[in-house]
Amino acid sequence: MTVKNDDTPKFTRRNMLTGPARLALLAGVGGVAGGTALGTLGQGFSRPASAQEAGQSVNVEPGQLDEYYVFFSSGQSGELRIVGLPSMRELMRVPVFNRCSATGWGQTNESRKILTEGLLPETKEFLASRGGTYQNGDLHHPHMSFTDGTYDGRYIFVNDKANTRVARIRGDVMKVDKIIQLPNQSTVHGLRVQKYPKTGYVFCNGEDRVPIPNDGKILDDQKQYHSMFSAVDGETMKVAWQVIVTGNLDNVDADYQGKYCFATCYNSEEGVTLAEMTAKDQDWVVVFNLKRIEEAVKKGDFKEMSGVPVIDGKQGSPYTRYIPIANNPHGINTAPDGQHVCINGKLSPTVSIMDVTKLDDLFDDKIQPRDVIVGEPELGLGPLHTAYDGRGNAYTTLFLDSQVCKWNIEKAKQAYAGQKVDPIIQKLDVHYQPGHNHSSMGQTKEADGKWLISLNKFSKDRFLNVGPLKPENDQLIDISGDEMKLVHDGPSFAEPHDATIVHRSKVNPIHIWKRDDPMWEEAREQAKKDNIDLDTAADVVRDGNKVRVYMYSIAPAFSLENFTVKQGDEVTVYVTNMDDVEDLTHGFTINNYGVAMEIGPQATSSVTFTADKPGVYWYYCQWFCHAMHMEMQGRMFVEPKTA
Amino acid sequence: MTVKNDDTPKFTRRNMLTGPARLALLAGVGGVAGGTALGTLGQGFSRPASAQEAGQSVNVEPGQLDEYYVFFSSGQSGELRIVGLPSMRELMRVPVFNRCSATGWGQTNESRKILTEGLLPETKEFLASRGGTYQNGDLHHPHMSFTDGTYDGRYIFVNDKANTRVARIRGDVMKVDKIIQLPNQSTVHGLRVQKYPKTGYVFCNGEDRVPIPNDGKILDDQKQYHSMFSAVDGETMKVAWQVIVTGNLDNVDADYQGKYCFATCYNSEEGVTLAEMTAKDQDWVVVFNLKRIEEAVKKGDFKEMSGVPVIDGKQGSPYTRYIPIANNPHGINTAPDGQHVCINGKLSPTVSIMDVTKLDDLFDDKIQPRDVIVGEPELGLGPLHTAYDGRGNAYTTLFLDSQVCKWNIEKAKQAYAGQKVDPIIQKLDVHYQPGHNHSSMGQTKEADGKWLISLNKFSKDRFLNVGPLKPENDQLIDISGDEMKLVHDGPSFAEPHDATIVHRSKVNPIHIWKRDDPMWEEAREQAKKDNIDLDTAADVVRDGNKVRVYMYSIAPAFSLENFTVKQGDEVTVYVTNMDDVEDLTHGFTINNYGVAMEIGPQATSSVTFTADKPGVYWYYCQWFCHAMHMEMQGRMFVEPKTA
Repeated sequence: MTVKNDDTPKFTRRNMLTGPARLALLAGVGGVAGGTALGTLGQGFSRPASAQEAGQSVNVEPGQLDEYYVFFSSGQSGELRIVGLPSMRELMRVPVFNRCSATGWGQTNESRKILTEGLLPETKEFLASRGGTYQNGDLHHPHMSFTDGTYDGRYIFVNDKANTRVARIRGDVMKVDKIIQLPNQSTVHGLRVQKYPKTGYVFCNGEDRVPIPNDGKILDDQKQYHSMFSAVDGETMKVAWQVIVTGNLDNVDADYQGKYCFATCYNSEEGVTLAEMTAKDQDWVVVFNLKRIEEAVKKGDFKEMSGVPVIDGKQGSPYTRYIPIANNPHGINTAPDGQHVCINGKLSPTVSIMDVTKLDDLFDDKIQPRDVIVGEPELGLGPLHTAYDGRGNAYTTLFLDSQVCKWNIEKAKQAYAGQKVDPIIQKLDVHYQPGHNHSSMGQTKEADGKWLISLNKFSKDRFLNVGPLKPENDQLIDISGDEMKLVHDGPSFAEPHDATIVHRSKVNPIHIWKRDDPMWEEAREQAKKDNIDLDTAADVVRDGNKVRVYMYSIAPAFSLENFTVKQGDEVTVYVTNMDDVEDLTHGFTINNYGVAMEIGPQATSSVTFTADKPGVYWYYCQWFCHAMHMEMQGRMFVEPKTA
Repeated sequence: MTVKNDDTPKFTRRNMLTGPARLALLAGVGGVAGGTALGTLGQGFSRPASAQEAGQSVNVEPGQLDEYYVFFSSGQSGELRIVGLPSMRELMRVPVFNRCSATGWGQTNESRKILTEGLLPETKEFLASRGGTYQNGDLHHPHMSFTDGTYDGRYIFVNDKANTRVARIRGDVMKVDKIIQLPNQSTVHGLRVQKYPKTGYVFCNGEDRVPIPNDGKILDDQKQYHSMFSAVDGETMKVAWQVIVTGNLDNVDADYQGKYCFATCYNSEEGVTLAEMTAKDQDWVVVFNLKRIEEAVKKGDFKEMSGVPVIDGKQGSPYTRYIPIANNPHGINTAPDGQHVCINGKLSPTVSIMDVTKLDDLFDDKIQPRDVIVGEPELGLGPLHTAYDGRGNAYTTLFLDSQVCKWNIEKAKQAYAGQKVDPIIQKLDVHYQPGHNHSSMGQTKEADGKWLISLNKFSKDRFLNVGPLKPENDQLIDISGDEMKLVHDGPSFAEPHDATIVHRSKVNPIHIWKRDDPMWEEAREQAKKDNIDLDTAADVVRDGNKVRVYMYSIAPAFSLENFTVKQGDEVTVYVTNMDDVEDLTHGFTINNYGVAMEIGPQATSSVTFTADKPGVYWYYCQWFCHAMHMEMQGRMFVEPKTA
């Protein structure tokens, strides 16, 4: 039996909150936390874990390819990560909400356009004195676009909890092409996409309740706070509609018919302190009726706010239903069978199974909200998220027990109906405190039941000590056989948070940029105005104190060995990488000027800066390109201002 | 035999340079590149590579620890990476020259102090309108501090080629504590440390030649350009002295007696274009005599520039010697035997072996410069760097041949002396185009000959396709037996550039910060002035329009559930993490305000911003800490300005 580490985080609590609610809460959570050891030792489901015993090999031989792409959230690192599975090697980092030193994301004109144009007007004003862009993000949920219930490779959508943004990554080049900030809401937490007929909508949960508009006129009057659900059109990246709800939205998922989506909802108390938020025994799943909402938008049953139709979906609305669930549910996951949806209890040891085929009747008031619940197995302490194998089994992370629980959906339904069956098949220790988990293709109708990743929030002693800040631990579990087998510990920086495992047959990026890519449309337009051919350029165009420098690069040289500007000029440098060889990326860095950018094969990138320091500044290629890479450089002369 | 990929980067060259030098260069390099296939096919040293055949296992079972730390450069990503070996898993990212969304590096007051206080005065002025700090860096060489010829775990030193900086990472907490910008030079490329008696000096190669001072008075008069070698005191992180040299410095290393250090030097022509820089057949190794230089500083034989004693070490100086080496040598590596130093030919297929025991005689003019060369084996095309196994063998990367060549130092010396011996033992294909390589403990006198990493600049088809930007490929090679065996392909983002493999016995970080750590000295001082105990604080102190907010955190709550400021206030938030549990890091993010920072267990972090947007802004903990982590939040009220 796997030995459990004795010093699991102890979550010391001090007397921070006041009043009876606090005492109740702490007693309750204390009881839960106290159950950790019991949960493990008492149930005896843990198995010895070893890669040697596994049915599938985690070892990907040198030169062999992984079978799956994993699109990994990086949490507060703000980037998207692409990982290979089963090797669990990080294949690429895609900068999204972060500032990237290597690629110049956040500095190039092309990235700044994407980072700024979708911001709200008040944010643009706010950031004007802060360099124009946010420099941080909290990327939570990466989800690929669907067609007909499975991944289609077009896009990956992600959200930023920190600054209320949604971004889209192009599947062909694995770069972001659109970022929008959602109006009328504070933070976006859960994000999932429409599965059928296609994406379609990107569903975004506003988590925090705030005054709308949040302009300071209302501050501490929490009765005037609201939380908002948003549907973004994944094609246009505009908000299609929003729904005001009761409570704080947490996670979200959608059905396989394109009729409903549903979100867990905590803080039905609509409190603002931890004690207030957890006072009641019960919260909700909110179900959104897409057809009714679309009709409401058509017929005008909405209030327009910041240019978006906003529908009232608070309790009692025809557009939503509120299904009671035990206090503070967390993850919500649609099973590949198209019928069942698991709602994970978090503070309750249960998972509630919702039957989506009953939702029509619920909206037609033929049944009561709780009638849609067809199972509610007690699995262990702290159930957060559930994944599926396509064979009728579910895999639920138990945060407090530090386990993954494998259980059977049909047996759970039988037990709920009164039969004496135990739906639990196996419990496996993970290390430690799992949050999200995900199975291979498990969020599609093509779930293949081969691999499960458990994203564990603490690694503690599982890796070489790297100081007070530890990696998290993304563990790989073989679920292809009757028993789950732990085969790999995967350290990761900051919070991986969530992941999507996509079979490689669904993903087909290109190797070399197309010269007419929309990414550098503005550069093309400017070059045209300047009568410059980007592909063969070696020119400096002066336009008052604006100077545009055009060059191209072919390893190991830039077409301009030097250029001259005047102190105080606003300089834009356009570099076109004319190498058309796979993997031959160039860079452009100006020494001591804080300027650096990536230029992929056949791409154009540009950067604008003020040349306010006179002198000689070498620029060089910072992406290794050639044996003579180190000699790939040139000089910017900045002539001093004449007195 | 390993099959070589047919479409190795072809380095297309167009007619960019002019004149006969260019033609000569291109013909020369073309000849070299043309030899790639021949180099591989003709020599037949490639071996089938398979993990199964390896003597050592690369597989680290779940819960087992790696044997070595690898301190990995990230190149233009600007961070330091800590990787475990042999699993090659990334254990931690340490932000250094980059802006980190997750930790707030570049935003917290603690990190901004480190990032700004060591900048040159003219850079501070330059960055004043750019947020005060650089947001990019090009981190090239990570090297741990030595005591008596081996690693001592105290520090890791790294350099920034982009903005001419040197940083120090503390070995106890794996965070940067000092960054300085080097005066009187442009860029710092090669960096190595003093091995004996201890570090001591950090040797930093100024690569580019620029006018000194570089203030715009001299622009295109290249005769007035200089390049500079710097010795930084690793204890004080101040520049001890600098030496003006002839040519461009590339890589550097030091001996095991504390007497000499030596740098490869290209562009002996002192040209500024690729054609000019490669016109001659010969460049140099520059040897620096530490004792003579220290005496010169004592007796005043220097010119003070920007507060640093600058010594004239150009050709003919008593402080240096220039040893002729074939055109454009690149890496320089001291062998663990303490006697031999390999100088890698780059454009020449040779490695030159220098005997450091002959350097005393060279400085005393008893011998000629070339007399210190005791071997010069021809290994293949594009030799860049050499590593060692401590058993007398050397491992040289061949960039153009895409191979690692294992050869024997003694046999190379015998061949140089005229004996008919072949020093080459084996060539192994790597994928593709290797730059640096490194062996386990191979840069110390304790080289153990177990593992070799080859840092390959192109990965091309070795991993799942992730679009036009590809990872590089850090390959792990088992060198414990008679034959090298390739056991692992390791993708990595941007340019890993260089790495240092340190046995885990040398590295001993702490798990929990000490409350009196110097990192937040200023926060402690300010709290004292404000009569606040950081450990128990829940206070707002107003001082004109400056507001200081003090709180502590214990999972799952902040000690302040809300605080109020006025629009336009300059707000500093201090958060102290009073959890004393291993791995229990908290975070502090303010929604839509672009504020986010890490607070390690028992650490204090602070951030300063202007509250110029009125309204209600939730702050939350972004490092998962507890089952109730999502509820760990509070509200900042920003009261609107009264008209």
